Amino acid sequence: MKYKVLDKNSVVNYLFEIQEVMEFFGDDDFEASEIGDGNLNFVYIVKSTTNPKKALIAKQAVPYLRCVGEEFPLSRERMTYEIRALTKFKKIVPEFVPKLYHTSEDMSLVVMQYLGEHQILRYDLIDKKTFPNFSEHISTYLANTLFYTSSLYLQSDDKRELIKKFNDNTELCKLTEDFVFTFAFMENETNDNENVKDNPLAAKIFNDMEFKKRVLDLKYKFMTQTDALIHGDLHTGSIMLNNDETYVIDPEFAFVGPFGFDIGALLANLVNNYVHHHIVTGDQEYKEWLLKTTYEVLEMFDEKFFELWDSQKDSALITDGYIDDSTLEQYKSQFLKSILQDSVGFAGCKMARRVFGVAGVEDIRGIKNKELRAKAEELVINIAKEFVMKYDSINSVEDIIEIIKR
Amino acid sequence: MKYKVLDKNSVVNYLFEIQEVMEFFGDDDFEASEIGDGNLNFVYIVKSTTNPKKALIAKQAVPYLRCVGEEFPLSRERMTYEIRALTKFKKIVPEFVPKLYHTSEDMSLVVMQYLGEHQILRYDLIDKKTFPNFSEHISTYLANTLFYTSSLYLQSDDKRELIKKFNDNTELCKLTEDFVFTFAFMENETNDNENVKDNPLAAKIFNDMEFKKRVLDLKYKFMTQTDALIHGDLHTGSIMLNNDETYVIDPEFAFVGPFGFDIGALLANLVNNYVHHHIVTGDQEYKEWLLKTTYEVLEMFDEKFFELWDSQKDSALITDGYIDDSTLEQYKSQFLKSILQDSVGFAGCKMARRVFGVAGVEDIRGIKNKELRAKAEELVINIAKEFVMKYDSINSVEDIIEIIKR
Repeated sequence: MKYKVLDKNSVVNYLFEIQEVMEFFGDDDFEASEIGDGNLNFVYIVKSTTNPKKALIAKQAVPYLRCVGEEFPLSRERMTYEIRALTKFKKIVPEFVPKLYHTSEDMSLVVMQYLGEHQILRYDLIDKKTFPNFSEHISTYLANTLFYTSSLYLQSDDKRELIKKFNDNTELCKLTEDFVFTFAFMENETNDNENVKDNPLAAKIFNDMEFKKRVLDLKYKFMTQTDALIHGDLHTGSIMLNNDETYVIDPEFAFVGPFGFDIGALLANLVNNYVHHHIVTGDQEYKEWLLKTTYEVLEMFDEKFFELWDSQKDSALITDGYIDDSTLEQYKSQFLKSILQDSVGFAGCKMARRVFGVAGVEDIRGIKNKELRAKAEELVINIAKEFVMKYDSINSVEDIIEIIKR
Repeated sequence: MKYKVLDKNSVVNYLFEIQEVMEFFGDDDFEASEIGDGNLNFVYIVKSTTNPKKALIAKQAVPYLRCVGEEFPLSRERMTYEIRALTKFKKIVPEFVPKLYHTSEDMSLVVMQYLGEHQILRYDLIDKKTFPNFSEHISTYLANTLFYTSSLYLQSDDKRELIKKFNDNTELCKLTEDFVFTFAFMENETNDNENVKDNPLAAKIFNDMEFKKRVLDLKYKFMTQTDALIHGDLHTGSIMLNNDETYVIDPEFAFVGPFGFDIGALLANLVNNYVHHHIVTGDQEYKEWLLKTTYEVLEMFDEKFFELWDSQKDSALITDGYIDDSTLEQYKSQFLKSILQDSVGFAGCKMARRVFGVAGVEDIRGIKNKELRAKAEELVINIAKEFVMKYDSINSVEDIIEIIKR
């Protein structure tokens, strides 16, 4: 089908032709309305007219950034990679990926499960909500998606097939290279320049050459390290959940990149939220829950990844019989430590870029009181800097928690 | 054109249709004869009947390993990557790549300059020939091919295009993964098992788990580190030269891999030749020339790579204005040290695999006297092991020369 931009009327006509959608709605009529919070894309909720709780999401990419407009072109092929990533992750961790009813790379369109009973994690964390199963769920998601798409599980030919499928997601990778690793640490028109101006904290980070040198190392890893298929933008706005279920959405930044990047993104967002509560609410109990959750996510990831690896005797990397079991266990421990270290480094970049870079997060930039916001920013920069300066000497999850608490 | 296997008659008929070939031979008739030393492919020398010095090389891949036969299938698409690599390298360092007269990915065929006045470096080194310009030439080749295909020069989209062009060279990458990094260090039917049997040296290396653990690290780098377009098999049999000119041939293993792999391959082959002369000829003067050459290749590579990098202000990695000049110089020094370190690690693997692995080299396996051969093998393993165990603490080229000399 030839690509055309749909609106709330034509999307309904389009969906009439999709058998899975028609089966979902059965005898019900349905209608679509736009959801306003799509930054990059047009997102429609398609509801049964008789039973509005029966609904699907239709998401279409347009050849520009929706939130900015046609003057910021961004090729709609980003949806190609979102579709491929959703499809791949759905196979690996079906319980954490929305059900897919229809995908079309030609139309840059995906139709999927409506998460009507789930909230976006970022705002729930700001509202001090706790989730008893979150660390269990997200560590399972991370361990499985990363392990099963790596050379520790795949054979070489399957790994290269996977790299090929995502190799051309250049534009979105470039956004990360620019906005996460570069522009947020130098004078740049895309920054939050109202805040940068005459701000000693901005001057401090822009002039910290040792920090920036280490950011270069991490940027280079991001650009050249093909460990596994990563989500690529796993912040707390890409997670929807409730007490029972956790879903990871919006993987349009997906490509075969470094193990530590998704883990680092999540860590960065949890710490930014911790800073929010430390400065704004001072809620000790909630801060404890955040630290416990952070600890659990990282520890459980480690255990689960290790376990998955132990169950796989032969892969692109390991030939059965090559090395004895006890040495292999040592190798795995070192390997996992190095994943943890990279995660901390990436987390540092991701935290720091939220302070002066183009896309602030509600946890920090959303703080209304200017004085408190400045305090939060300073704390974010301090922790981020310590993460970046020390990531390669981190030995354990405890080391990370210590840095956050200080 | 549909693929078909050519023989010495049909290759001539095929070449009649190629304008560049007809222009090369002008009014001369020409005929083809097979050159026996192609391991993987059929190689024909196509000569003018009136002036046999006027000649071209036609090289065609068949869907199996020529030297073994049809029972060892290997897809002929390896020639696709050889053609792409020759074409790319020819643009970057035209003086070190044979002139190309015709290439056809469909026919898995390349027609190129005949290097009638050049010898294969491996045999010349065994014959104690010296080459006054070799280190100058090969360091220029390495610095330029690696720099201009890396993220230190290219922008992100061009880098990803390059990765894509070579991504499917899976089969040949897999040969390296298996034969360089794995099978040569464990019981395997492909090894030189006559020599492995009851050999304490084989037992020593097969049971050295610390060594093998480090080999795993290097194998993982080989599989996942997309630094630059590498030749992939840069041993001294892939270099043809005389006093004035140096040519690098046979890049069918090319793919976007780690910086250190080509440098390491060359280092390994120079050291294996050094061991040959240490044990077999005892020629002190030639050994000195080999050490001097090894030193020069590595030092000159470093200088030239640095110089190329200094001339490039903006790339996928470095945004002009991001970091101050003196910090950037420090970053570059660290970066180059890490290339040197990886080169030493890869050299260790490549040296060691020649001892018991499937493809021995003349410098070592060709030693007729069994006792001397065993001595040479022991020295190769000792140096290789030191390279692998210490590569990440190497600080300078002097450190490497010290290890070889001891």
